[in-house]
Amino acid sequence: MIPSRIEHDFLGEREIPQHVYYGIQTLRALENFNITGIPIKTEPIFVQALGYVKKAAAMANRDLGVIDPEIAEHIIKACDRVIAGEFDDQFLTDMIQGGAGTSVNMNANEVIANVALEMMGKNKGQYEFCHPNNHVNFSQSTNDAYPTAFRIALIKKLTSYSNSLSLLADAFAERGVAFRKVLKMGRTQLQDAVPMSMGDEFTAFAITLQEELHRIEDSRRLIAEINMGATAIGTKVNAPQGYGELVTEHLRQITGMNLMLAQDLIEATCDTGAYVQLSGVLKRTAVKISKICNDLRLLSSGPRCGLFEINLPPMQPGSSIMPGKVNPVIPEVVNQTAFYVIGADLTVTMAAEAGQLQLNVMEPVISFALFSSISYMTNACNTLREKCVTGITANAKHTHEMVERSIGIVTQLNPILGYETAAEIAREALTTGKSVHDIAVVQRRLVTQKKWDEIFTLENLIHPEFIV
Amino acid sequence: MIPSRIEHDFLGEREIPQHVYYGIQTLRALENFNITGIPIKTEPIFVQALGYVKKAAAMANRDLGVIDPEIAEHIIKACDRVIAGEFDDQFLTDMIQGGAGTSVNMNANEVIANVALEMMGKNKGQYEFCHPNNHVNFSQSTNDAYPTAFRIALIKKLTSYSNSLSLLADAFAERGVAFRKVLKMGRTQLQDAVPMSMGDEFTAFAITLQEELHRIEDSRRLIAEINMGATAIGTKVNAPQGYGELVTEHLRQITGMNLMLAQDLIEATCDTGAYVQLSGVLKRTAVKISKICNDLRLLSSGPRCGLFEINLPPMQPGSSIMPGKVNPVIPEVVNQTAFYVIGADLTVTMAAEAGQLQLNVMEPVISFALFSSISYMTNACNTLREKCVTGITANAKHTHEMVERSIGIVTQLNPILGYETAAEIAREALTTGKSVHDIAVVQRRLVTQKKWDEIFTLENLIHPEFIV
Amino acid sequence: MIPSRIEHDFLGEREIPQHVYYGIQTLRALENFNITGIPIKTEPIFVQALGYVKKAAAMANRDLGVIDPEIAEHIIKACDRVIAGEFDDQFLTDMIQGGAGTSVNMNANEVIANVALEMMGKNKGQYEFCHPNNHVNFSQSTNDAYPTAFRIALIKKLTSYSNSLSLLADAFAERGVAFRKVLKMGRTQLQDAVPMSMGDEFTAFAITLQEELHRIEDSRRLIAEINMGATAIGTKVNAPQGYGELVTEHLRQITGMNLMLAQDLIEATCDTGAYVQLSGVLKRTAVKISKICNDLRLLSSGPRCGLFEINLPPMQPGSSIMPGKVNPVIPEVVNQTAFYVIGADLTVTMAAEAGQLQLNVMEPVISFALFSSISYMTNACNTLREKCVTGITANAKHTHEMVERSIGIVTQLNPILGYETAAEIAREALTTGKSVHDIAVVQRRLVTQKKWDEIFTLENLIHPEFIV
Amino acid sequence: MIPSRIEHDFLGEREIPQHVYYGIQTLRALENFNITGIPIKTEPIFVQALGYVKKAAAMANRDLGVIDPEIAEHIIKACDRVIAGEFDDQFLTDMIQGGAGTSVNMNANEVIANVALEMMGKNKGQYEFCHPNNHVNFSQSTNDAYPTAFRIALIKKLTSYSNSLSLLADAFAERGVAFRKVLKMGRTQLQDAVPMSMGDEFTAFAITLQEELHRIEDSRRLIAEINMGATAIGTKVNAPQGYGELVTEHLRQITGMNLMLAQDLIEATCDTGAYVQLSGVLKRTAVKISKICNDLRLLSSGPRCGLFEINLPPMQPGSSIMPGKVNPVIPEVVNQTAFYVIGADLTVTMAAEAGQLQLNVMEPVISFALFSSISYMTNACNTLREKCVTGITANAKHTHEMVERSIGIVTQLNPILGYETAAEIAREALTTGKSVHDIAVVQRRLVTQKKWDEIFTLENLIHPEFIV
Repeated sequence: MIPSRIEHDFLGEREIPQHVYYGIQTLRALENFNITGIPIKTEPIFVQALGYVKKAAAMANRDLGVIDPEIAEHIIKACDRVIAGEFDDQFLTDMIQGGAGTSVNMNANEVIANVALEMMGKNKGQYEFCHPNNHVNFSQSTNDAYPTAFRIALIKKLTSYSNSLSLLADAFAERGVAFRKVLKMGRTQLQDAVPMSMGDEFTAFAITLQEELHRIEDSRRLIAEINMGATAIGTKVNAPQGYGELVTEHLRQITGMNLMLAQDLIEATCDTGAYVQLSGVLKRTAVKISKICNDLRLLSSGPRCGLFEINLPPMQPGSSIMPGKVNPVIPEVVNQTAFYVIGADLTVTMAAEAGQLQLNVMEPVISFALFSSISYMTNACNTLREKCVTGITANAKHTHEMVERSIGIVTQLNPILGYETAAEIAREALTTGKSVHDIAVVQRRLVTQKKWDEIFTLENLIHPEFIV
Repeated sequence: MIPSRIEHDFLGEREIPQHVYYGIQTLRALENFNITGIPIKTEPIFVQALGYVKKAAAMANRDLGVIDPEIAEHIIKACDRVIAGEFDDQFLTDMIQGGAGTSVNMNANEVIANVALEMMGKNKGQYEFCHPNNHVNFSQSTNDAYPTAFRIALIKKLTSYSNSLSLLADAFAERGVAFRKVLKMGRTQLQDAVPMSMGDEFTAFAITLQEELHRIEDSRRLIAEINMGATAIGTKVNAPQGYGELVTEHLRQITGMNLMLAQDLIEATCDTGAYVQLSGVLKRTAVKISKICNDLRLLSSGPRCGLFEINLPPMQPGSSIMPGKVNPVIPEVVNQTAFYVIGADLTVTMAAEAGQLQLNVMEPVISFALFSSISYMTNACNTLREKCVTGITANAKHTHEMVERSIGIVTQLNPILGYETAAEIAREALTTGKSVHDIAVVQRRLVTQKKWDEIFTLENLIHPEFIV
Repeated sequence: MIPSRIEHDFLGEREIPQHVYYGIQTLRALENFNITGIPIKTEPIFVQALGYVKKAAAMANRDLGVIDPEIAEHIIKACDRVIAGEFDDQFLTDMIQGGAGTSVNMNANEVIANVALEMMGKNKGQYEFCHPNNHVNFSQSTNDAYPTAFRIALIKKLTSYSNSLSLLADAFAERGVAFRKVLKMGRTQLQDAVPMSMGDEFTAFAITLQEELHRIEDSRRLIAEINMGATAIGTKVNAPQGYGELVTEHLRQITGMNLMLAQDLIEATCDTGAYVQLSGVLKRTAVKISKICNDLRLLSSGPRCGLFEINLPPMQPGSSIMPGKVNPVIPEVVNQTAFYVIGADLTVTMAAEAGQLQLNVMEPVISFALFSSISYMTNACNTLREKCVTGITANAKHTHEMVERSIGIVTQLNPILGYETAAEIAREALTTGKSVHDIAVVQRRLVTQKKWDEIFTLENLIHPEFIV
Repeated sequence: MIPSRIEHDFLGEREIPQHVYYGIQTLRALENFNITGIPIKTEPIFVQALGYVKKAAAMANRDLGVIDPEIAEHIIKACDRVIAGEFDDQFLTDMIQGGAGTSVNMNANEVIANVALEMMGKNKGQYEFCHPNNHVNFSQSTNDAYPTAFRIALIKKLTSYSNSLSLLADAFAERGVAFRKVLKMGRTQLQDAVPMSMGDEFTAFAITLQEELHRIEDSRRLIAEINMGATAIGTKVNAPQGYGELVTEHLRQITGMNLMLAQDLIEATCDTGAYVQLSGVLKRTAVKISKICNDLRLLSSGPRCGLFEINLPPMQPGSSIMPGKVNPVIPEVVNQTAFYVIGADLTVTMAAEAGQLQLNVMEPVISFALFSSISYMTNACNTLREKCVTGITANAKHTHEMVERSIGIVTQLNPILGYETAAEIAREALTTGKSVHDIAVVQRRLVTQKKWDEIFTLENLIHPEFIV
């Protein structure tokens, strides 16, 4: 028989295995919420962030003299051990729960109280010496502690995500340099348009992703606005004077993050706008990366019956039946990640819209959606860079030949011939199969060979000068 | 000065221009709701459906003896004129309104009352002789009359949409027959896979769209469930005994539609499930059509630097700068229509989720979304068929050559050589540029020319037999 | 040092730990795809379904004489052990992968081949005796085996989901009976409307959910259409004559499911319509359940400053700061589950739209989305039933008093007084605070006390007769 | 018979009614695109923006000497008349078209050319004197001119939208001041929480909307980045040296907007990120406004069986059957507008993801979605302010009484009694119906009346001090 202790809350008594650090309220949460099977410990950064919040609160409470300094010190030490990851396995609440995060907050309060009790030489459960609510949660409510911990975790995850995205952009930029001299046909609406440098195409991928870094930074600023001291609904009930500012300052010190106390705590406590904005940014990046992966798959289509402009590194046999087939599996998995993130954004939108009066109770599913979106996007960026982009090669000879065969180069003659004559040449080329050069220079003598040679240099094809 | 009359409701009195048939409640709606600028008269089928509902109600009320038979007859005649479209211009309420359709219902009640009054030789506004609420709306509530009219309008629009979709499927099927002998490379993951008939590719487009007709039919059955007689919340308050069944029977006669009275009127009055289901079907078809248009654009890419398998009919010059460029503008506009419909489905989802207690007050935006989605999809199907599909031609010579050049045909040799040997041939073909025939027959002598000829017939390429 | 074996594919050689049953292609997948961290073994039903498919294929291949009967028998026995769950831990591919399921299919092929090899007395990796591609995958392609296994898994999960949903509907129906005599105010647009029975309100919840069972059944029929024998793109290349029908018959026998072979295998191989339809049904149910949970939370609001019509069973202390507060945590977690499912539906939509030409390569993320949506919805139904619905109680005295105090009961007098007089009474009641009875019976003597008593019986309030 | 002229393009000749200013390419567009029935002239700001772009281009071409200065001057004057709205009725292309905006661009080119021709004393169609492509479109492509005009139109619409949103926020702020002394119960999870000032609740609405103004400003900055001079794909083919910078400077002068030339024109030409970001901001505001409207409807629920905290101005009779019923129709219509905008954001997302290679051809549906979303949101803000917010009144007596009756005020005693004792009091209050004061002061004497009076002042209830 497992030794146990009895704990109670205002709904009654329950038996808790003696070896666990969580208490009765966590136990109830474990019984109540069995939806995803994914416990919060799968986001150790979130557990750590809860430790930061509880530590800062204990420090502020100590400074303001509202809890016994000795108890405060034990709470602080217990928090340090939680922050270090020592008790991750005690954070078992399902990622989606009812209660607006109360179960997660109480999970933290109970674990920290019991760790502190043990460090005080007491038994787990002797809450008269260090109480989850009266001490660990002092001056706090779930409605400020939970979102603050959530935001700290988001900021930490965003740092790692930004880094991966930045490296991915760098990898595209590096390919941009490598492909600088590769002439290829530009396409609009999937139809041959005008020539360009493949390097410029890849540079554009880099630039469009670099812009995302700024958008993430914008989001980070909104996320860094916290509401500690708001307590239940933002009226600061039960929080001592000056507590909000002080705990925020402690959190800034502990985390090294530029956290800011919200100006209007009532607004801040019910508002989920920062999550919606962040989710929108993740979605925007997902849309862009999905477009890029679509392009990579299109440009590498073939080998014999497709565009065959680039080669992606072969990562695995592509078919259980078609021998020798190699598929663009890395862009494919990234596309799918993007679709996940776009779906998760809708979950965040629905949850945000469902807020009522002084609180948005749907914050746990927002956490679940944002945590997974950021993790998956980070992984997708790393995967795309390491296993695909850095190894892309160009079929320069083939792309060059396609340009020469193309009709689209007639656009280059517009300033000389005018749109209508150029259109006639294009039409003839299309119907007869002749080249633009044949028609314009040899047959119709509308352009001299000298002028032609002046216009159709590699450099002028990829970065055209205006020549009349 | 425009002659006017004074009307009142329990909020007060208002001046109404004498020439208009609507009354004070419609006037208030016009002032209150200025969001889209799109009045309900842009859906004349909806106005007609309101006429059907009001007519059937008057007939049932007359039959049950709960309103004066003479007044009933005048209401019926007035409804006939509304049904004929004579008063469409009086239905000016904005497509999105608050009030769960009350303004639309009252717009109908007021117009019909005033038309009836004129036919009775009275002046507009002399409601003591025929009252919008006490007579035209008798035994009804907005909460049964509005959704019933909405559903009748949907059914009518679905008929026309089904017809367009069916003709589109036929057009693809016809091309399927025409392209029966066109050999082309099948592609999976945009990589060359195994050969196929272009006819089979187009037949698959036809079949996948034909399935949608069944799904629309499923939806129509759900939509045909109405809640007449429910009145305010489904308890039938103020409706005489037997009214619900009787009015439904009249509506069946008048519309020729197989309408059914819902079994549980309380459930039916607050439920929007049928709209969600229909919207989901529209979305599914949009997804399929979008995929098909993506394929058409891909297959017609080029002309020199793309797949160039098919030619879409040229509809307009494709560029203001690139002479001779012709773009796949018809599939493009259809893709965009699909994106609209997918977005509108989310609007319906949000609105359906927002229902509360005994009613879903968001039904007007559901109407707006579904009406526009069905109209746009109908137009898109007609446009795609008439201006694109029927005129598609195949570049059979080119697609045949691509198959011959391809490596993918090696799969056909699997049963003879096994996957690994076939993979080696594929690998060699890819790296050396040689053909599969060269390697397998000439160089390695793994297959005799006779066996090769047996396997690589046109018929066996497109509909392969298992040959060992 | 862990003993290992060398395996090769056409990309090269790799070392595989000797104790694992998967091979080189699974190893590559593990390296290539690190996105979610959730391996397919978390869906043991899917692993089982792969076993069913491989078993049926081996049986058909044996019957048709295209593989050695002895090898076939060993494959069949190996499949039985996979079906029994003995090798779940070998299915480690990430739920989201590129390659359209090739890695999952090869994971199954490799595990089964190695299990068979061991049973044949060979070493793992001696594929000349039983080869993942040449034997286990014979007559198959990922593009038929993967979706077929996926569909079988879906059907199995849907059975369990339907059961949970049905029990939830029953629980609401049972409460409907229990609350039959509880009089309460019906509300439309959150405003007091007319009285009703709380029993009817709960019965409507039951009925609206029961309808979903039919929609799930519709979906199951579409999902049951499989494409075995299609091989790579639906042309049946490499599959022996009659194989498709035979393997389907075997699968029907093995699974006991009413599986059907698709009529057009080319269409079936690239079509994801059945997933979109199923996802739409899941979304519809999510929308309905979310609406119901919104209602439960609204009706139980209070206890002193809300509607306070019903009591949900108290499941846990509701606040870390507000003593005695109990929150509707169960409906809340169900709302959030619904938002997840609605988001996942968008993921499915995006993935379905992204299909190209002969295949939809995004099927893995569709699997991920549908598997999680069905699991979460099943859990949510069970949770809502067990921990909430069955324990709901009514505050009948309070709801009865609210009806008596209400103005909405004046609607009951419409047939007697007409809409306008009734509106005047309502107006007076609102401004003066008097009761409708006071104004109509006592003060204005518009209704006799006898008529009043006839109309305002409990039975007539909840199921009104038409009284004039 | 209507007099006509013959025009030709490279697809052939067509007859054009002599009186119209558009030409053959617009005619083809009118025939090709019949989807929404909504022509671009319904966005006169967009037509105006096209005029700005064409004018600036003509000025830059003139300055650079690449077109005849006299022709340039006539184009400029023609543009001025288009800008003034004189030819709005000539812009008939459907809001959704294929061709990435080519039809809209050519519609503008043709109208401007013909207006210029008439001003030159020529006949419409005498394009040798002023040609739609060779003169009006000189140095441009649809792919720079269309998005630039689109962005200018967006900026203009955003100005008006910001203004409406700002006024709405002001109206909430004004009510915040008016309700400063109204004590009410704060609610979390729809359960009674702790007291607050109704003024603070409304102030929070104001603040949360004011934040949106900053987000709109962020978007405006992204939208202000244009790609003039990019021409077809961003390589500047056919644009003279220095043209991009010069035309941007002219546009800045003409529009007074702070437009910026994109740094990488290839990236800018295919990127739709700014639209996604703007759409995300519109969605975020829609989510917030929807939440606020949900709150307004909840707080005004009743009058007798709801929360009845506030009164919305009665705008129209609420029911065709229930006399005296008044519904919150204004918040309802705003909720629905929000759902439209959230759906439109998905349309934008899908369209943005569908970009391929050097262009996103789906920009027209993005225009359609963003134009309608901004218009509807602007209208919704105005409607909500004028017809609802400014007239909201508080039922202060009722809300005050609710606070007194509430159990939630026990939280105020936490610092004195501790969480557990307070929870016991709450429990007793709930089960016995007694007040917190009765139990804490009278019965259990845990708090003196003096301390009670010190704590439960109005000021301390709404802005609590920490009292122990």
